[in-house]
Amino acid sequence: MNHPPTHAKVLEGDAAFPRVARRAGQRTIPVSFGGVLIGGRGFAVIAGPCSVEGPEQIHTAASEVARRGADVLRGGAFKPRTSPYSFQGLGLEGLAMMREAADAHGLPLVTEVLTPERVEAMAPQVDAFQVGARNMHNTALLHALGATERPILLKRGFGSTLTEWLLAAEHIASAGNERIVLCERGIRAFGTETRFTLDLAGALWAQDQSHLPVIVDPSHAIGQPSLIPRAAAAVLAAGLDGLMVEVHPSPEEALSDGAQALTLDRFEAMMRDLKTLDARRPLIAWGERSEEGGRG
Amino acid sequence: MNHPPTHAKVLEGDAAFPRVARRAGQRTIPVSFGGVLIGGRGFAVIAGPCSVEGPEQIHTAASEVARRGADVLRGGAFKPRTSPYSFQGLGLEGLAMMREAADAHGLPLVTEVLTPERVEAMAPQVDAFQVGARNMHNTALLHALGATERPILLKRGFGSTLTEWLLAAEHIASAGNERIVLCERGIRAFGTETRFTLDLAGALWAQDQSHLPVIVDPSHAIGQPSLIPRAAAAVLAAGLDGLMVEVHPSPEEALSDGAQALTLDRFEAMMRDLKTLDARRPLIAWGERSEEGGRG
Amino acid sequence: MNHPPTHAKVLEGDAAFPRVARRAGQRTIPVSFGGVLIGGRGFAVIAGPCSVEGPEQIHTAASEVARRGADVLRGGAFKPRTSPYSFQGLGLEGLAMMREAADAHGLPLVTEVLTPERVEAMAPQVDAFQVGARNMHNTALLHALGATERPILLKRGFGSTLTEWLLAAEHIASAGNERIVLCERGIRAFGTETRFTLDLAGALWAQDQSHLPVIVDPSHAIGQPSLIPRAAAAVLAAGLDGLMVEVHPSPEEALSDGAQALTLDRFEAMMRDLKTLDARRPLIAWGERSEEGGRG
Amino acid sequence: MNHPPTHAKVLEGDAAFPRVARRAGQRTIPVSFGGVLIGGRGFAVIAGPCSVEGPEQIHTAASEVARRGADVLRGGAFKPRTSPYSFQGLGLEGLAMMREAADAHGLPLVTEVLTPERVEAMAPQVDAFQVGARNMHNTALLHALGATERPILLKRGFGSTLTEWLLAAEHIASAGNERIVLCERGIRAFGTETRFTLDLAGALWAQDQSHLPVIVDPSHAIGQPSLIPRAAAAVLAAGLDGLMVEVHPSPEEALSDGAQALTLDRFEAMMRDLKTLDARRPLIAWGERSEEGGRG
Repeated sequence: MNHPPTHAKVLEGDAAFPRVARRAGQRTIPVSFGGVLIGGRGFAVIAGPCSVEGPEQIHTAASEVARRGADVLRGGAFKPRTSPYSFQGLGLEGLAMMREAADAHGLPLVTEVLTPERVEAMAPQVDAFQVGARNMHNTALLHALGATERPILLKRGFGSTLTEWLLAAEHIASAGNERIVLCERGIRAFGTETRFTLDLAGALWAQDQSHLPVIVDPSHAIGQPSLIPRAAAAVLAAGLDGLMVEVHPSPEEALSDGAQALTLDRFEAMMRDLKTLDARRPLIAWGERSEEGGRG
Repeated sequence: MNHPPTHAKVLEGDAAFPRVARRAGQRTIPVSFGGVLIGGRGFAVIAGPCSVEGPEQIHTAASEVARRGADVLRGGAFKPRTSPYSFQGLGLEGLAMMREAADAHGLPLVTEVLTPERVEAMAPQVDAFQVGARNMHNTALLHALGATERPILLKRGFGSTLTEWLLAAEHIASAGNERIVLCERGIRAFGTETRFTLDLAGALWAQDQSHLPVIVDPSHAIGQPSLIPRAAAAVLAAGLDGLMVEVHPSPEEALSDGAQALTLDRFEAMMRDLKTLDARRPLIAWGERSEEGGRG
Repeated sequence: MNHPPTHAKVLEGDAAFPRVARRAGQRTIPVSFGGVLIGGRGFAVIAGPCSVEGPEQIHTAASEVARRGADVLRGGAFKPRTSPYSFQGLGLEGLAMMREAADAHGLPLVTEVLTPERVEAMAPQVDAFQVGARNMHNTALLHALGATERPILLKRGFGSTLTEWLLAAEHIASAGNERIVLCERGIRAFGTETRFTLDLAGALWAQDQSHLPVIVDPSHAIGQPSLIPRAAAAVLAAGLDGLMVEVHPSPEEALSDGAQALTLDRFEAMMRDLKTLDARRPLIAWGERSEEGGRG
Repeated sequence: MNHPPTHAKVLEGDAAFPRVARRAGQRTIPVSFGGVLIGGRGFAVIAGPCSVEGPEQIHTAASEVARRGADVLRGGAFKPRTSPYSFQGLGLEGLAMMREAADAHGLPLVTEVLTPERVEAMAPQVDAFQVGARNMHNTALLHALGATERPILLKRGFGSTLTEWLLAAEHIASAGNERIVLCERGIRAFGTETRFTLDLAGALWAQDQSHLPVIVDPSHAIGQPSLIPRAAAAVLAAGLDGLMVEVHPSPEEALSDGAQALTLDRFEAMMRDLKTLDARRPLIAWGERSEEGGRG
C-alpha cells in the first residue's frame, strides 16, 4: 500500500475524537462508495454537475465523466440555498434521474442530504450521502447518518476548525457509522480573488490525525475553472485520497454554480494529468524515512 | 518549456500592475538567483536554517542541504522580530559567514533585508534579497530594492490580499527592478491547528496574473515538519516554480523557529520525492487543452 | 421613538431579502418576546445561564437576574455541542424547569431549538425560539420556525456573512414568520485573545439594511467577563436594540461555558451602567442630521 | 478620574511587553498630543481629511472641525499607498500647510511618518507621529520613533494580533519613548459588507493589558459614513480614550478615501451625540464593583 505515512502526535485513549483518531502506526481505513474504494491504493475522482437539472443533462454528464475516467458521480437533488428564492433542486425525482444515469454508466453516486427525515427515503437510491458545509454542525443530521448503512462524505464547514470537523465525524461515528470520508472544500479567509481559501495543509493535518480518508473539493474552494487542474494535481501529489470536482457539459447553462464548473475538455485534460502523476504515486514516500519512523 | 498554461483574464494596458502582469500568451519570465534559474524548466529548492547562528552551524547547513540537492541557500542575518527581546540575528557578520558557507558549497544565497539603508552594504554579499512578510507594505524598502541589480524574493504579507502582493511587486518594478520572484508563505485565517493557512490556490492565481515566478514557503505557512514533505510535493505538481524550506541540522538547538525546521533526514526524503515527481513534470499539461487554448 | 436613523441605500422591490429589508424611511418593527418589546424605545436585556442544570440553579438564576433588571430569561435545554461527549442539556425536562423559574419571577424566556420536529412540542413552553450560530444555515429548521406563532432570535453564524444572515432571516420570513430579532454573537477571525471577534459594525450594518431589531451577545463573542460590561455599554450607546449575556450564580460550577459567564456582582454593576447610559438615549440622534435626511 | 477599571490578569516582571503592560491597580498613563491629554478624564477626538490636498482644503478642514469640537487635527502628507500609481501625498510641503492650518485654529496635529530618516525633519512640525497599519511591523521605523521626543499614535496592523500590537508598542518603548497611544483601525476578516472588521473588544482587551491609552478609528475600519456616528458613540461609552475620524469638507472631491469621510454635517451631529453621552461618563463604572476589585 502506498498511503502517506503519519507522523502526527498519536491520539490514544483520551483523544477528543477517539473513534476517528488515527492510532500509532495505523493506516487509513478505506471506505467503499458502491464498490469504489476511497483511502486505499488508488486516487478517487468524484465528478458531476452541481445540480441535477433534468434527465438529459445528468445522463450526458454521467456518460461524459465516466468516459474520461471519473470513479463516482456527484450531483445535487436537494440543494441547500443561501437565498429562499434560488433553485432548490429537483428533489426525489431528481435523485431518481441521477440513479438511472449513474447505473447506465456504471458509476456509484453520492448526493447531499439536508434533513434527518429524508435519510431513509434516499438511502436505497444513493451509494453515499454527502453532508454539505452548511450542515457540518447539524448534529441531528449527523446522528441520523450514524444510523444508516451508507457511507458518508463529510464536508468541512467553511467557518469550522479542523478539530470541529473531526468532532463532526466523531458525532457520526459515535452514532454507529464509521464509514466516513472527509472532504475539505475551502474556508473563509479575508481574500476575494478566489471564492474560498483552499486549506490544503488542513487536509494534510486531518489525514495525520484521523484514519478516515481525506479528499478535496477544489471547485467550491477556488471557484475558477482555470486554477482547478493544477490544484487537482497538487491534491494527488500530496498523498490525499481523492478529489471532488464540478463538471458540466454546458457550464454557461447551469442552473447553479456554472461559473466554477469544469468543461468536459478541461476535465479531460485534468484527468490525463492525474493519470500521468498517479503512475509515480507508488514511488513517493511523502517524507517517510523521517525521525518518527514510517508506517508499519 | 513546461510551465503551466495561463488561462487568466489577460491584463493589458490599464492593468492595476502593468509591469508585472502577464500578457496574453506570455510565458513566465525566469529570474536567476546567482545562476539558478527560477521560473524556467526546473523546480528550484531554496533551503537552509531560519537564522545564521554561527560559522559552524551555517557551514554544516550549507553542506548538508547542498549534498541533498538544494539549489539555493537561505538563512537570516537580520531578523524581523515581533518582540524586541528576541534574537535579532548576527547582522553583517552573520551575512559574511553565510557568504563563505554558500561559496564553499557552490550555492547562491538569499537573505532578508530589513531597511533601505542596508541594501547597498549587503548587495555585494547576496545573490538575492528577500522581503519578508512583515515588510511587504514597506514601500521605502520596496523602492530601494527597485534600484539594485540584485533579484528580489518577495514574500506575501500574512494579512495581505493577492492583489496587494502583486502591487508590492509593481512598486519594486516601477522603481526599476523587474527580477522578482513571488513567495506565498501562509496567511492568517481562523484556524490554529497549522501555524498559518497555506494559500496554494492563491499562489496559482498569482501565477496566472503575473509573469513573475511563484514559489511557496510551507515551513512558515504550516509550522509542522511532518506535513511539509507532502505540501512540497503538492507545490511541485501544481506547476509552481519552487519551494523555500527551513532545514536545520539540529532543530532542537535552533535559536529561532526550530519547531518548524525539517531535520536533514526528512529533508532528504522530501528531496527524493520531489525528484520522483519532477521526472513527470514534462508530461503534465496542467489542463492545457482547455477551451482558452494552451500556451504559445 | 428614539431609534437610530437609517442612512442605508434603500433596498426596494428587487432586494435580495425583500421581506426583511428596511424600506426608505421605515422604522424598525419591534418584536415582542412574551410582552417585552425588542426594537422599540427601550433597550432589552436577555440574561441567564448557558445551560439549565437543575431546578435550583435555574430558579436562582431567574430570581437574581430579574432582581437586577433583566427583561428576558435565557438558558439552554437542548445544547448544540461540538463534541458528542459533552453535556447535551436536560431536554424537555430542563425546559419545564426553566418555564417554571421564568414564571415564578415574571420573565419571558428564550431558548434554543435544534431540530424542526421539536418546534411543536417546545412552542407552548417558550416565549421565543433561538436559532444558534451553528444552525443559521439549517434551512429545514428555519422553515419550521417560519410556521410557528413564536418570535425567533436568530444568531449569526460565526463563519457567515452579514448578507447570509439576512438571507437566513428571509428564509424564516418567507415561510410565514416575520417576528425575528437578529443577534450578532462574534465571528471567526485570526485572533485568539478574545474567543471570537465581536462585529459591532456588522450589527450596525444589519440595522441599516433591515427593519428587524438587532441585539448583540458579547458573552460568546468575547469570552472574557471582564470585558463584557464595557462592550454592553457600547452596544447600548450605538443604538442597537438589546443585549444577551450569560450570567451564572456560580460560574466556576457551570456545566458549560462557565468561564465566560458574568457573576451576579458584575452583572449588577453592568446593569447600573446601562441604566445610567439609557437615561441619555432619548437625547442621542446617532448622526441624524446627516445629508441623507433623518428618520420619519 | 473616570477611566474604566482593569480586571485583566496582571502582567508583571516576565510580561511579554513589560514596559507597556498595565500593572496591578495601575491606571492608564495619559499621553499629551500638543497639550491635549489622551487617556485622562476626557474623550479625545482627532479629526481631519485623509490627505492634505492644498492650503485651502486643509485650512477649511481645520477650521470646520475645530469649530465643531475636534481636539486634534489629522491629515496625511506622506501617504502609504498600495499602488505605486496612486496619489502619494504632498510631502514636507503638505506638512507645512497642515502646520499652518493647525496653528491658525489652535489644534495640535498628528500625521503619518513612513520612514525612519524623515523623523528628524518632520519632528519640529508635528505634535505626534502616526505609525500606519502597514508599518506596524516596520521595526526600523518603530526604533527611530523610540528616539524622538514626540508622542506616537500606533495603529494596529490589519493582519496583526493584539499581542503583536502591544509588542510593536514595546519596540518603541524599549527604544526610549513610552508616550504611545494605541489606535484600533479594523482588521481583515471574511466579510465584505464593511471595509474592515472593527475589533472593539480587541481595543478593550488592549486597554486591560496595557497602561497606554487606546483609541479607535472607525473610518478606516468601517468605510461607510452612515455607520460611523453610531460606532463613535459605542467607543465613548465603552470607556475607550478617544476617536480618530476622517472628515472632509467635500468628500466627493477628495483625492483619497473620500467615500469613507464624514461630511461636516454628519461630523457635527456626531459631536453633539458624543457630548450628550460624555456628560454621563463620570457616572459609569464599567462593571467596577466586580469580584476582582475596582481601580485604586
